Amino acid sequence: MKRKVTLKQIAKELDVSISTVSKSLRDSPEISEDTRQKVQAFAKLYNYKPNNIALSLKNRKTKTIGIIIPEIVHHFFATVISGIEQVANEHGYSVVVCLSNESFDKEVINMEMLANGSIDGFVMSLSKETQYKGDFHHITEVINQGMPVVMFDRVTNEVLCDKVIIDDKMAAYEAVQHLVNMGKNKIALVTTVDYVSVGKLRTDGYTKAILDNELPFNEKLIIKIEDIENFEAQIADFMENRAIDAVLAVNELFAVTIIKLARKMGLHVPEDLSVIAFTDGIISQYSTPTISTVSQNGIKMGQKAAKMLIDRLEAEEDDEAEELYRTEVIETSLIERESTK
Amino acid sequence: MKRKVTLKQIAKELDVSISTVSKSLRDSPEISEDTRQKVQAFAKLYNYKPNNIALSLKNRKTKTIGIIIPEIVHHFFATVISGIEQVANEHGYSVVVCLSNESFDKEVINMEMLANGSIDGFVMSLSKETQYKGDFHHITEVINQGMPVVMFDRVTNEVLCDKVIIDDKMAAYEAVQHLVNMGKNKIALVTTVDYVSVGKLRTDGYTKAILDNELPFNEKLIIKIEDIENFEAQIADFMENRAIDAVLAVNELFAVTIIKLARKMGLHVPEDLSVIAFTDGIISQYSTPTISTVSQNGIKMGQKAAKMLIDRLEAEEDDEAEELYRTEVIETSLIERESTK
Repeated sequence: MKRKVTLKQIAKELDVSISTVSKSLRDSPEISEDTRQKVQAFAKLYNYKPNNIALSLKNRKTKTIGIIIPEIVHHFFATVISGIEQVANEHGYSVVVCLSNESFDKEVINMEMLANGSIDGFVMSLSKETQYKGDFHHITEVINQGMPVVMFDRVTNEVLCDKVIIDDKMAAYEAVQHLVNMGKNKIALVTTVDYVSVGKLRTDGYTKAILDNELPFNEKLIIKIEDIENFEAQIADFMENRAIDAVLAVNELFAVTIIKLARKMGLHVPEDLSVIAFTDGIISQYSTPTISTVSQNGIKMGQKAAKMLIDRLEAEEDDEAEELYRTEVIETSLIERESTK
Repeated sequence: MKRKVTLKQIAKELDVSISTVSKSLRDSPEISEDTRQKVQAFAKLYNYKPNNIALSLKNRKTKTIGIIIPEIVHHFFATVISGIEQVANEHGYSVVVCLSNESFDKEVINMEMLANGSIDGFVMSLSKETQYKGDFHHITEVINQGMPVVMFDRVTNEVLCDKVIIDDKMAAYEAVQHLVNMGKNKIALVTTVDYVSVGKLRTDGYTKAILDNELPFNEKLIIKIEDIENFEAQIADFMENRAIDAVLAVNELFAVTIIKLARKMGLHVPEDLSVIAFTDGIISQYSTPTISTVSQNGIKMGQKAAKMLIDRLEAEEDDEAEELYRTEVIETSLIERESTK
């Protein structure tokens, strides 16, 4: 039985990266002539069939939307998928989901696989590694071939397409302002590394709120968690060595861990330590005390992203206005619970 | 631009169910001659292309596994997906996920879509509605055409294929026995409706443990939640009108709600009311008190299911032994936390 060779196998066989294979097959000038020829010869030998999106688009519509997200255990992404499903089903579309597991290679492989005639367009959120590398050729390539892409939450300015985001900077600003209004003045930020676009924006919003309120800005009150495997120990070390009276955490897992550690340290939440988290998920609703959150409206974000994609898919080909890409900003709201009152 | 007509559109146009369309296209004798002809004529007119799995199987391997699950917000299913991903990636396979949202029609549509050349085989868990209807023709059809299917967790005896399950009856039995050993004798069961296969098995295990311990079996101590939208009110009403000292809940959302309601009623957990939940997810780990759980080992279940599917995909065609379907039983374990000690 003849098996289709995959990007991954070609990369392994020739000992180059998946990105190099992908670019070589598209004859990208970024790759040396020699490498390109080697990859192309190998692909030909093993009968590798690259995408031919333009052709498949002309011949049929699959009425299917492809979703690519970094992970599935995260409640926020699950709610976005629910929102996409709702609008997709209303318009007679099905949905398939692929996970990048925060890996650039998996993101490229997934897009390659789905773009190969299975779907009409993508709704996606970038993997951490893709944001770190800043390599978006797999996305621009798909768009250039005529397949629409809508990005949500983790987006990049380097790709021209429709986007749905929340105003992360403003949301963080408002959360910190709320803590300041409560009389807190030693406010910590527990966040992720800067190359995750939303992490950077939230840090900016935090910093602006501190400065606008003329509080002393202290870099030591910000911790950027890189190693997610080991975050509890990092946060414990952070809390034991800082005098803080409030925390803004960029996800609810960090927040519930902070509350657990505070209890161990004999601190009362919210009296001694007030806590606000990004992401309004089930942990925040069911922990004791319940946790105040910045709701990112995942459902609404998914609904909007699906609507933008379907609008573009169903627009007449000669409709010039549709060529203008839009960025929709979904409103966030602060949900007050026991951790701040 | 010519669009591909879908099963759903044909069903709507002819005012019949999706199942009827699907069966008519396969010339099933279950459907009247008249309806079959009408559906087939319509499909032909609109150029509907039914699956041709056998053909696509001969020509290529996609190296992709299709997963169909009832819902994504449920932590258990998210962990199963992680397990499938791990083993799939190790063997050079990609994974695509579709959600049935507990709907029979969506399950049929998703299988139809994926079986159409996108994937090599399925790993799936049945929707509630499919179990309720007892209609599995879409699955047997795919298997008959030569595409392997592995079912996990919510399975049926009516389809011959590889399966991965936990011993739900034994797991419930052991949980109840644990509560009896603690001295509890008014033990309630909060479960789902019987047509969900695992719900039925857990009720059987609960009942057997009660009888084996010579406790009085009282049907009023069992509540079967049908309307998930409204479960909190149903459980509140149940708790206020029963004298109970322990609860086995079939998921952690029910368990955390029971604990919240107990607190409102002035009951202490675990002294006045001990609680054990199925599904070892994040709620159980982070609620106060933390919740004792029957761990279903979602990761292991996913790994095993993926391995069984890949083994079958990669077996030689003339390997007779591979024709024997297996049912693997994954061991559960009782994780003791604050809600029982």
